Amino acid sequence: MKRRMKATITYDGTNFSGYQVQPEKRTVQEELQKVLTVMHKNEIVQVTASGRTDAKVHATGQVIHFDTTLSIPLDRYAQALNVQLPRDIRIVQIEEVSNDFHARFSVHGKRYRYIWSCEAVQSPFRRFYATPSNGVKPNVMAMQEAAQYILGTHDFSCFCAANTSVKDKVRTVAKLDFEWHGEELHMTIEGNGFLYNMVRIIAGTLWEVGIGKRQADELASIIASMNRGNAGKTAPPHGLYLESVFYND
Amino acid sequence: MKRRMKATITYDGTNFSGYQVQPEKRTVQEELQKVLTVMHKNEIVQVTASGRTDAKVHATGQVIHFDTTLSIPLDRYAQALNVQLPRDIRIVQIEEVSNDFHARFSVHGKRYRYIWSCEAVQSPFRRFYATPSNGVKPNVMAMQEAAQYILGTHDFSCFCAANTSVKDKVRTVAKLDFEWHGEELHMTIEGNGFLYNMVRIIAGTLWEVGIGKRQADELASIIASMNRGNAGKTAPPHGLYLESVFYND
Repeated sequence: MKRRMKATITYDGTNFSGYQVQPEKRTVQEELQKVLTVMHKNEIVQVTASGRTDAKVHATGQVIHFDTTLSIPLDRYAQALNVQLPRDIRIVQIEEVSNDFHARFSVHGKRYRYIWSCEAVQSPFRRFYATPSNGVKPNVMAMQEAAQYILGTHDFSCFCAANTSVKDKVRTVAKLDFEWHGEELHMTIEGNGFLYNMVRIIAGTLWEVGIGKRQADELASIIASMNRGNAGKTAPPHGLYLESVFYND
Repeated sequence: MKRRMKATITYDGTNFSGYQVQPEKRTVQEELQKVLTVMHKNEIVQVTASGRTDAKVHATGQVIHFDTTLSIPLDRYAQALNVQLPRDIRIVQIEEVSNDFHARFSVHGKRYRYIWSCEAVQSPFRRFYATPSNGVKPNVMAMQEAAQYILGTHDFSCFCAANTSVKDKVRTVAKLDFEWHGEELHMTIEGNGFLYNMVRIIAGTLWEVGIGKRQADELASIIASMNRGNAGKTAPPHGLYLESVFYND
């Protein structure tokens, strides 16, 4: 009998060409499917995630689903996977869900985190995990002020990478906060959905406000323009973490 | 004119075959000397550290010295090195010292840190930076009790890797403390000097006390035996950090 499994996973994106399978590349999806397929005696197991993440982007709370025919008890399933998975992917939690649960189509919202390290000399231990500011301390008040323009429901074409096929670019950003953790600045953003590169373009644009390259109130006209060219640079991938995916449980 | 420079450096040991130059291997010393030699127009610059660290061992406060003929002002010297060094080595601080300062011979003491991650599933972000306990929570009280036997001045032959040429194995351990940082257990140890693998063998032995494999008071007979075979396993290198080197300033 097939059981549908929902798993919360975490991965260090450094050595992956992103989440989604691509020929000749090391991806998170491929590593998961490889292990599951071996466990299922070469019956191919397809894994579906809440969405893809780009190369070098991390996840602390990505969600996937897959169907299993194995009778491994639930409380041992995560460990059975973890012993076979590479150390840069870990199953945090696994549960059995009804067959109509879908890791992507059932999503109600997501939370991402973006981290900048603002010490004068970036710790070598943070080089893959936070974007260095090379000692620049941004004006977080200005970034918070600019963030107010992003909150709410808007057509976010200005924050969407040009190469996308999505037509409806209206999304709702419910929270957008900044917090210092020592000398690292964390931005967290929650919304009902995010366009391709949206979090990284928002991070890059707000950073430009923080370092005085733009004024906070420019955000109003940037959003209204619906033009990617008016927003800031796409922030580097290695500062980004997919932190939570929300479902109606 | 030659100036002697003392630098505090930090490195992520993951991708190094240790500190000391070895043929055909990537080492911290080699990377430092390569950059300094290029900066000195191919005049070979020798770098001397407080001591070597093994493959995969990290440093947050290693100290080196070298002699320079360059007239780069002191406040720009660290940056001049950092822009050329690989991102897994950073110069934290640099100062000019008298010619009789020697990074190794002038050492008065060192502090190391050893980290175990004790969560049920080790975060992928910690896989190169802490030793996983696979969910085991050690008895830290017992480890602290065992640590009391190590404090003070002893012949530490029992905690010295067999393949060493050092004759005098008497050292003084001045501090040995445990502290939880979330679900990670940190051991810090300070002393006037450490034998080859001494910190890792102490960590491995105290861990065995923590998980009930040994009694705390066994430490007395282990030390008295002066026999490496009676101590515990050498703890893995990637949990170890050289944190500070002390000099008489």
